[in-house]
Amino acid sequence: IKANDDKELHKLLDEFHYADIAEILDEVNLDEATYVIKLLDSETTSDILTELDEDIRERVLKNLSAKEIAEEVEELDTDDAADIILELPEERQEAVISHIEDQEHKAEITELLAYDEDTAGGLMAKELVKVYETWTVAGCMRRIRGQAEEVTRVHSIYVVNKEEKLIGRLSLKDLIVAKNDQKISDLVKVNVDYVNVNDDVEDVAKVMAKYDLEAIPVLDDNEVLLGRITIDDIVDVLKEEAEKDYQLAAGITGDVDSDDSILELTRARLPWLFLGLVGGIGAFLIMEGFQDTFNKYAVLFFFTPLIAAMAGNVGVQSSAIIVQGLANDDVKGSVNNRLIKEMLLAALNGVILAVFLFLFVWVTKGEINTAFAISVSLVAVIIVAGLIGTFVPLFLDKRGIDPAIATGPFITTSNDILGILLYFWIAKMILGI
Amino acid sequence: IKANDDKELHKLLDEFHYADIAEILDEVNLDEATYVIKLLDSETTSDILTELDEDIRERVLKNLSAKEIAEEVEELDTDDAADIILELPEERQEAVISHIEDQEHKAEITELLAYDEDTAGGLMAKELVKVYETWTVAGCMRRIRGQAEEVTRVHSIYVVNKEEKLIGRLSLKDLIVAKNDQKISDLVKVNVDYVNVNDDVEDVAKVMAKYDLEAIPVLDDNEVLLGRITIDDIVDVLKEEAEKDYQLAAGITGDVDSDDSILELTRARLPWLFLGLVGGIGAFLIMEGFQDTFNKYAVLFFFTPLIAAMAGNVGVQSSAIIVQGLANDDVKGSVNNRLIKEMLLAALNGVILAVFLFLFVWVTKGEINTAFAISVSLVAVIIVAGLIGTFVPLFLDKRGIDPAIATGPFITTSNDILGILLYFWIAKMILGI
Repeated sequence: IKANDDKELHKLLDEFHYADIAEILDEVNLDEATYVIKLLDSETTSDILTELDEDIRERVLKNLSAKEIAEEVEELDTDDAADIILELPEERQEAVISHIEDQEHKAEITELLAYDEDTAGGLMAKELVKVYETWTVAGCMRRIRGQAEEVTRVHSIYVVNKEEKLIGRLSLKDLIVAKNDQKISDLVKVNVDYVNVNDDVEDVAKVMAKYDLEAIPVLDDNEVLLGRITIDDIVDVLKEEAEKDYQLAAGITGDVDSDDSILELTRARLPWLFLGLVGGIGAFLIMEGFQDTFNKYAVLFFFTPLIAAMAGNVGVQSSAIIVQGLANDDVKGSVNNRLIKEMLLAALNGVILAVFLFLFVWVTKGEINTAFAISVSLVAVIIVAGLIGTFVPLFLDKRGIDPAIATGPFITTSNDILGILLYFWIAKMILGI
Repeated sequence: IKANDDKELHKLLDEFHYADIAEILDEVNLDEATYVIKLLDSETTSDILTELDEDIRERVLKNLSAKEIAEEVEELDTDDAADIILELPEERQEAVISHIEDQEHKAEITELLAYDEDTAGGLMAKELVKVYETWTVAGCMRRIRGQAEEVTRVHSIYVVNKEEKLIGRLSLKDLIVAKNDQKISDLVKVNVDYVNVNDDVEDVAKVMAKYDLEAIPVLDDNEVLLGRITIDDIVDVLKEEAEKDYQLAAGITGDVDSDDSILELTRARLPWLFLGLVGGIGAFLIMEGFQDTFNKYAVLFFFTPLIAAMAGNVGVQSSAIIVQGLANDDVKGSVNNRLIKEMLLAALNGVILAVFLFLFVWVTKGEINTAFAISVSLVAVIIVAGLIGTFVPLFLDKRGIDPAIATGPFITTSNDILGILLYFWIAKMILGI
């Protein structure tokens, strides 16, 4: 197929959706991908570009001239265009922008480039259908026929006053049902949700998910309508957020996936492993400190991996629940109540597990005192681990730090050390060594 | 406010969005919530019900009669109505259905109840705008004005032939731009994505996210149009999936949140902790088996928590990346290549960490042989842990089991035991004990 038979290839690819072509291009080699992009017209290829894997897009764009990129960008909605330009090195950004022929499109993209990527401004598109409150339904329909050409999907028609401030919205449905000579100001729905251009994208996602919105208008501080955000962009934001949190909980930082290079993956994974190494050395020092105990109660040492594992597991469980609750805004009530609840929960789990451990040690070792000491320590370790797992994310959140970093290796490591220390200390006390 | 002043309360709540009222009701006590639900008209309360927290909804519904629930359900779209009825105990389900007055609504809800919750059929709504290919634009507009009353948001107009089979779609925009006497069959866009009624919801979510769709038609095996799924339902599916995977990775099964009772939380957490306990006992038995070594090389024992922690962390990292890749369908290529890559990655990370560990043991203990033995074992343990973390999810996925269960405690525990065993075995060999 790749035998340079342009016409055949053209015919073949014409039948595919651009998202499918992007998937194929993710697989083939770079030269072939660039070749296909240059072959197809920019109306299709611009959409393909937005769907390509980020790494591959970066390399394909390197093979295109600034003028060629500008042609692709002309075909895209302003938000996608701005995203692609932002991925280019800075000197190329200006070259590409200067090649955009449509002056209005150019101005809008330049405006979007100025907003922070993580704000509503960085996510919004300038394409929307806007009407003035003073118009009639008939005039409105005429204008919409014009404006709607540019806008891929009409979600809502936004109604503004002559100062461009948002007054309300209309649906196409309302307009179709209305009479031709009705005034827009009589039809407009005034209760309309909106976000500020500086709002965090995560907050935008929450508002849209909560009210089941499919598009939301973006206003500046003076309530002037600047753009709109559609739900498909929010779906991407939600997916990225979820992946980031999942990776953080597993001890992986940065946006990596399984196809990234070994070096990129090492950079994402090694720091957390190093934390584990430091924690392990801490555990070593603690055990060494209790070395004298060993001659009498060697069995205590053989249970350290068990204690460390339980402390780690409980810590991760309790922190995961709190982190998720914080993300969903449903952690209410005082910190103290949370801690008391987690203490009761950990105590219940701890006692159940300790009974099993007690029976195991008693039956196999026949030493009831040792069995008792190990089991009591286990309960204490589980309670403390649960409290730390609950407290740390709440504390970080209060301090304005993303609590998601407090799951996974971070909690495991700190609980490992503390758990082992507590274990030896309590066991020594009970056994009276 | 809650002093039974009906009128005041009515006025106050009228200004709120139903999602906000639901949030308030999640907080107040049950009697007050039921009181508010009974006070407001069913048009508002039905929406509030869908937004309430599941546990609270269950209790509120218990306080309503079958007839009252039927009134709420009448106001809802078929998909939300079916979801609420499904939450009721079986004998009440029938009572509620028998009280629904609108026969068409009743038939549609009964149809939806028959589909599995995790399939497209379980997610779809019957409300959609449907036109026949033989109609003209003018006739079509007339019908849409009628149908659209029922449909909250018109995403696409679906075009069917006289056998009710889906032929294509139209947008409202296309219709507005078209001339009145044009035939629908001339305007229809034939390339339309759809899903089968038995498709898994996760697959539906993938298709919609990939093609940036806002609604997708649902067909039966004969291509007859049955209903449609909208993107806001998909947003909920994606959020639930992400939360489930996150909790599984932290060793929590079942859909719990931080406000659930201690008993529910114990049921979700204890099984995984028990797995950890069994693993810890395994580690104990291994260490006991190597007890003789202790007299000569006690220091080896003090590093077991470090080895166990590293094995666990590496395993979780590699499994998380694979699980996420599988969820996104971007794990391609052979299993062998994956394993070779992970082996190189783990070896690189392992060697870097081992060098640090070697220096630490050598400097503090002065025993170069011991330092060497521990470090070499660490590299081996990390490689094996990485391979297990990669292989297990791939294996589960091939067997049709959700690979997400292979993260967290499962991988940690198995890697703990295997890591400790490998560690003592290699260290013993190198030290020639």
